[in-house]
Amino acid sequence: MIEDIPALDMRGHNLNVALIHWPVLNKARDVVATNVTNFDIHDIARASRTYGVGKYFIVNTIEEQLIFVNRMLDHWRIGPGARLNPMRQTALGMIQLAETLDVVLNKHYSEEKPQIIATAARDFPGVERCSFRELRQDIFKDKQRARLLLFGTGFGLDEQILKKCDLILEPIKGASMEDYRHLSVRSAVSICLDRLFGAW
Amino acid sequence: MIEDIPALDMRGHNLNVALIHWPVLNKARDVVATNVTNFDIHDIARASRTYGVGKYFIVNTIEEQLIFVNRMLDHWRIGPGARLNPMRQTALGMIQLAETLDVVLNKHYSEEKPQIIATAARDFPGVERCSFRELRQDIFKDKQRARLLLFGTGFGLDEQILKKCDLILEPIKGASMEDYRHLSVRSAVSICLDRLFGAW
Repeated sequence: MIEDIPALDMRGHNLNVALIHWPVLNKARDVVATNVTNFDIHDIARASRTYGVGKYFIVNTIEEQLIFVNRMLDHWRIGPGARLNPMRQTALGMIQLAETLDVVLNKHYSEEKPQIIATAARDFPGVERCSFRELRQDIFKDKQRARLLLFGTGFGLDEQILKKCDLILEPIKGASMEDYRHLSVRSAVSICLDRLFGAW
Repeated sequence: MIEDIPALDMRGHNLNVALIHWPVLNKARDVVATNVTNFDIHDIARASRTYGVGKYFIVNTIEEQLIFVNRMLDHWRIGPGARLNPMRQTALGMIQLAETLDVVLNKHYSEEKPQIIATAARDFPGVERCSFRELRQDIFKDKQRARLLLFGTGFGLDEQILKKCDLILEPIKGASMEDYRHLSVRSAVSICLDRLFGAW
């Protein structure tokens, strides 16, 4: 199958990223809240910065987790890390913390409801998925439109979140013989942003 | 600029990945050996597995580092981790440890010298870079050919390594207004493999 992918200039888009720690699934498909992983903070902020994302929301319902992340961010935003690594400061400066997706929507999108786009590695029989190509084209046609791209920690976003989404992106397919799909969320975010915005 | 990218079926390629911890540069451009980062082991193995890479070489000249990584790998390959997370076992089972790039070449490529491909985020004035498109096409035309894709930790691969390479890939460009290029090596590997082998 040979298809065309436009290598358009995607700068100036209005898509933000949210990493959801609740409600997400665990291995047994229970709905749980996960802890924040330090590398998720750094890697996803750096990828977001690279691809022109304006804000990276870390969504966690556990207050202690948000306090912990805030203290860590202070090190890089205003503490010794800011002097030692200004590039990291630039990336981490775009992080916003929120308790839930609704808080993100109410606080940061009070004027314009964003198009909410879910990602999921698993299959949902009968559910239509949006292709990366289509979404890239749509964003190119209307860069001003507010959009929010959601990633789940653990074993993925719970149904409660999916129901609030306007679109679900197609799963990332690689090139393994047996369709192995167990990327880290850090890799998944990086690949999604590159497919949507990368210049190559 | 609109160009075509073929979405070919890249399964069955013969490219391996190596993560180089020596000789690499630090912030001051000194040549150093870096320590292994736990998330580099997991994330890069999972991405490699997803994109049909056969072997993921972790190259570190410090013996204690290789002992440490081996002990950690045992947990996932034959210890409790193998039972708890068989998908992780599948990914980490492809990791090979080596002291230097030369050891990789002598031990694993004794019959056929691979095409060695470097990656680098920084610019080298006057040096011709291979585009992702070109390399993808070349691999598609000759999938059997052994290839080794190198990534540097720290601030990137040292000149000693670059001199041994047949090609240097173009840097990953995102969509930020000021060409921000400070991805983690985990993100860089994921994006490179997706550009070379991803099905979308």
